[in-house]
Amino acid sequence: MEKNEVTMKDIAKHLNVSITTVSKAFKNHPDLNKKTRDLILKTASDMGYVKNYSASILRKKRTDIIGVLMASATNPFYNALFNGIESTAMENGYHIIYANSKRDKRIQEDSIRMFLERRVDGIIIAPVDPERDEGDRFSFRDAKGVLAFHRDGGQYDMVYTDEIKGGFKATRHLIENGCRRIMMLNNYILHPGSQDRIRGYRKALDTAGLDKQEELIVHCSKLDPDHRLNEGYSVVKETLEKEISFDGIFCFNDIIAYGAVKALKEMGLTIPGDVAVVGYDDLDYSPIISPPLSSVSYSQFEMGSRITKLLLKRLQESSMKPARIVLETKLEIRESSCRC
Amino acid sequence: MEKNEVTMKDIAKHLNVSITTVSKAFKNHPDLNKKTRDLILKTASDMGYVKNYSASILRKKRTDIIGVLMASATNPFYNALFNGIESTAMENGYHIIYANSKRDKRIQEDSIRMFLERRVDGIIIAPVDPERDEGDRFSFRDAKGVLAFHRDGGQYDMVYTDEIKGGFKATRHLIENGCRRIMMLNNYILHPGSQDRIRGYRKALDTAGLDKQEELIVHCSKLDPDHRLNEGYSVVKETLEKEISFDGIFCFNDIIAYGAVKALKEMGLTIPGDVAVVGYDDLDYSPIISPPLSSVSYSQFEMGSRITKLLLKRLQESSMKPARIVLETKLEIRESSCRC
Repeated sequence: MEKNEVTMKDIAKHLNVSITTVSKAFKNHPDLNKKTRDLILKTASDMGYVKNYSASILRKKRTDIIGVLMASATNPFYNALFNGIESTAMENGYHIIYANSKRDKRIQEDSIRMFLERRVDGIIIAPVDPERDEGDRFSFRDAKGVLAFHRDGGQYDMVYTDEIKGGFKATRHLIENGCRRIMMLNNYILHPGSQDRIRGYRKALDTAGLDKQEELIVHCSKLDPDHRLNEGYSVVKETLEKEISFDGIFCFNDIIAYGAVKALKEMGLTIPGDVAVVGYDDLDYSPIISPPLSSVSYSQFEMGSRITKLLLKRLQESSMKPARIVLETKLEIRESSCRC
Repeated sequence: MEKNEVTMKDIAKHLNVSITTVSKAFKNHPDLNKKTRDLILKTASDMGYVKNYSASILRKKRTDIIGVLMASATNPFYNALFNGIESTAMENGYHIIYANSKRDKRIQEDSIRMFLERRVDGIIIAPVDPERDEGDRFSFRDAKGVLAFHRDGGQYDMVYTDEIKGGFKATRHLIENGCRRIMMLNNYILHPGSQDRIRGYRKALDTAGLDKQEELIVHCSKLDPDHRLNEGYSVVKETLEKEISFDGIFCFNDIIAYGAVKALKEMGLTIPGDVAVVGYDDLDYSPIISPPLSSVSYSQFEMGSRITKLLLKRLQESSMKPARIVLETKLEIRESSCRC
């Protein structure tokens, strides 16, 4: 901010009118005739006047700002989700204060506090973990909020994919392609949604009459938020080194799957011949990696857009019952899993 | 914002002290003893008081907010750049208002106006095109700003890579690998930096004693901001259909290169056998696409971080001479270009 910023007072002085008159011109007040109003607006523009939102915020009791907390700035899942959020917010006259928790609960809490101090009208969060905790209680006490992903407990609005069906479809497809020992390469253990994807995986094994394969449910433990590929890579490498055998992998998401593919190739295994692989999210890069990756597909842009619309609805109807929006998925079959 | 928000007045009333006393407690004023101060702060916390930034903004004449305008929310180049910007801003106590121009000049101008109305302390822009225009004049009249990328004219702070050397290294490498007719697959024609990358390309041809190949300098014209891959794909497909021959491609960036690779494969050409390909930016996906892509490499995170530090310096020293920070690049050689 410049110190010698042009104020309404300067415009009033320049035109020898009252500040009230200048203010009325900006508000298009009926007291003023068109000629006077146009003159004032033109003079304001020529003098370089820019209205100050902060002043009107205190008056209006709203900021037209939504606080958005993502868990990564470089994971294409969050990028596509955020694109849907930002585009829909902009279309509706809202602006975004952005924060990135980097999957760190402390940053998540600090960011929520910052949003509240900035008096955002609403908050959208891709939460760090699914436990109901201090951060949650704090976040939704003073602002309206919508969560990306499902989590148990709490009376929040949420948007998520049909996790059980998604996990079921991916696993059934691997079974249909001849896989008998299927690894479920999960996200970090507490990730929202992961329990439901595991349920879908178990259901598919059960439906096909295959034994439970609990030792093949493995989690990403070495967290590397900006290079999640490395997480999938490490887990698959470790599992192969332990000589645990498997002929298919259902991955919690595509990024982790990219890492799994890298590890399999390095160990000289063919895809899908030795191990068939299916991911979840169908990111932009999945059709162009080698081999092209099969994936449980839906639009992250739509997910972000639905989240934002839900928040805007919540801002209008604060007594509305907590909403649950579940997005359908579709299995996109590509080379990585197709033995036919 | 809740209507029944807890104010300093409520805290004062509850404790039967003056508002001034409560205010002094928040400011850690020496007039108050520790016991009183601690009591007030604890009561404020228990009552759910959250300080209001908007009020202090009007007093302090600064917002601790940086406006950041990117040109895409899903292009991994901008994601990595933004990650560096956001992380460095956060470390320094600044928050981000985010906007995405989608490479649309009108949105760019509206966003800059919005930043100014919000009284951001500074602005970071990845500009839509390199012409000096109304949008620019407006943007830097009232706020301090730093540009990602180089552009001629204007006295702005800028951070960019050594474009000429980068273009030279990529093209020389293709020549060393036996390419004789090298396409320069450029960004859209006015993109900042593209003229310098073309200069580097021409210099490499010249140094090797090869004829100028101006008909092989082609531009992306069918713009598809969120799927830039399609842009590279279309241009290469069209060029092949025109039966213009080439045996190497230097791509303006990796995303466009991914599209070029897709088109070459579809037309049954081998990479690098028939056509060797080099990109620019060395994005996270370049080592895992098929074949792994050679690329002119540097850290977009560092670029974002340097941009933010430069802006913070500019906020301290507004009379500082316009700065130009040029990042060095390194050619990362992978299968897509290596015929050895």
